[in-house]
Amino acid sequence: MNSDRRQALSALSALCALAALGTSATTDAIAQASPASGHPSTPRPRLQIAMLVHPDMTALDLVAPQLVFATLGDADTHLVWKDLSPVTTDSGLKILPSTTFTDAPAAPDILFVPGGLKGTTALLQDEDTLHFLRERGASARWVTGVCTGVLLLGAAGLLRGHRATAHWYVRDLLPTFDATPVAQRVVVDRNRVTGGGVTAGIDMALTLSALLRGEAHARLQTLLFEYAPQPPFASGTPELAGQALTATVRERRGPAIDAARQAAQKARDRWTT
Amino acid sequence: MNSDRRQALSALSALCALAALGTSATTDAIAQASPASGHPSTPRPRLQIAMLVHPDMTALDLVAPQLVFATLGDADTHLVWKDLSPVTTDSGLKILPSTTFTDAPAAPDILFVPGGLKGTTALLQDEDTLHFLRERGASARWVTGVCTGVLLLGAAGLLRGHRATAHWYVRDLLPTFDATPVAQRVVVDRNRVTGGGVTAGIDMALTLSALLRGEAHARLQTLLFEYAPQPPFASGTPELAGQALTATVRERRGPAIDAARQAAQKARDRWTT
Repeated sequence: MNSDRRQALSALSALCALAALGTSATTDAIAQASPASGHPSTPRPRLQIAMLVHPDMTALDLVAPQLVFATLGDADTHLVWKDLSPVTTDSGLKILPSTTFTDAPAAPDILFVPGGLKGTTALLQDEDTLHFLRERGASARWVTGVCTGVLLLGAAGLLRGHRATAHWYVRDLLPTFDATPVAQRVVVDRNRVTGGGVTAGIDMALTLSALLRGEAHARLQTLLFEYAPQPPFASGTPELAGQALTATVRERRGPAIDAARQAAQKARDRWTT
Repeated sequence: MNSDRRQALSALSALCALAALGTSATTDAIAQASPASGHPSTPRPRLQIAMLVHPDMTALDLVAPQLVFATLGDADTHLVWKDLSPVTTDSGLKILPSTTFTDAPAAPDILFVPGGLKGTTALLQDEDTLHFLRERGASARWVTGVCTGVLLLGAAGLLRGHRATAHWYVRDLLPTFDATPVAQRVVVDRNRVTGGGVTAGIDMALTLSALLRGEAHARLQTLLFEYAPQPPFASGTPELAGQALTATVRERRGPAIDAARQAAQKARDRWTT
């Protein structure tokens, strides 16, 4: 298929998807569904998406995927925590959970875990959270996470025998949980989809959007969010930043990374006791 | 200066900045200040950053810049709205304001406005919000916004005679407010810094970070946030997406864009009455 035809077909797919939409809510104002996903007269069940929120999480880890998931079309995003009190993120921003561990969807289409070094280190030792992830992860259609949140998926035993990525400065902890670290921004291994640090969430979520709703839909979201990034500085990975800057960050974050390493090992030790 | 020396000096700058830091809060755990910004024994006044939050805003517009601003070092980010009730964003996520129009810093170092097509259209007709922006904008050191939020800066008269950008599908409305639209992701014109749609917020904020704290600091933030984006689909601008997909989005968003156009004209009409 030549590129003109491909582009025309892609646009047509998006148009068909859009034509099937309601117009009320803003999140519904964005196209849904690849045309391949079902007969238009058969309404699809709404996607149920369970996204962990937690104290000291990095808000951006959550918010970019939440925007992508909320605009998948026919999708409900649930922000899940132990209770409904506001959660204070590591940049001081406060976000309200929408449901609890108890009331979250039993078999979510997507389970998602954000990071935040201090917050995830605390939760590596929190049996309630690990129990929630273990249980919902076993029944979820897609198990996803980004940044240091991937360690929580690991601690819950959800990455055993899987390839995965995480924030570059904790990626080497993945083997603690029998996962194989991959130095990529997004890693898809069967139904596990993981992303690197903080800003990788949107790349992870758009990758999953294409798997769920088709490439035409993900392209449409990309245009709606004007996602044609132009980082002012090309220092977003250790390779790009160079050894000196990377060493600076590792040194500065050293105590927090050591705490995460110890918490990860303890979480793993509990598997066998 | 050759590239090795430049890299070494850049890393050294970051190291000096890091060495001057406290270790308690997570946001303080990230380096502050270019070494050029003052003698270490003279504590700088903390940056006061006023960020509008509003119903139906796009959370991602706010959250990426908020992370960058919160990690400038010695910086307080204030989330400002009419009252302290949770604000529901256009993807359903609820965020808590931290202060009110009345109590927000009188002369903020940075004033920031996020977008969200429906939400900003409503506020183009809201005199309380425009009054707040007009007043704080007059005394702010930097006046910034992204996405459709840039229209609010325009309606408050803050972009008269300035070059600016905004979400691609409303950028042509900027001349309504005597601003010159520029088809760039980030536009700096004197103390006005504006960004394109949704995902441009981080590029805008890192650009401003370098202006405020020096390039070494912005490079460090870039590495900490692993900001080396890899969009799965290269369709983030009308030029990249092609005519057919762009027409689809324009058609689908047409009524909402028309409403924004009418609200912008009405806001402009009020300047002369």
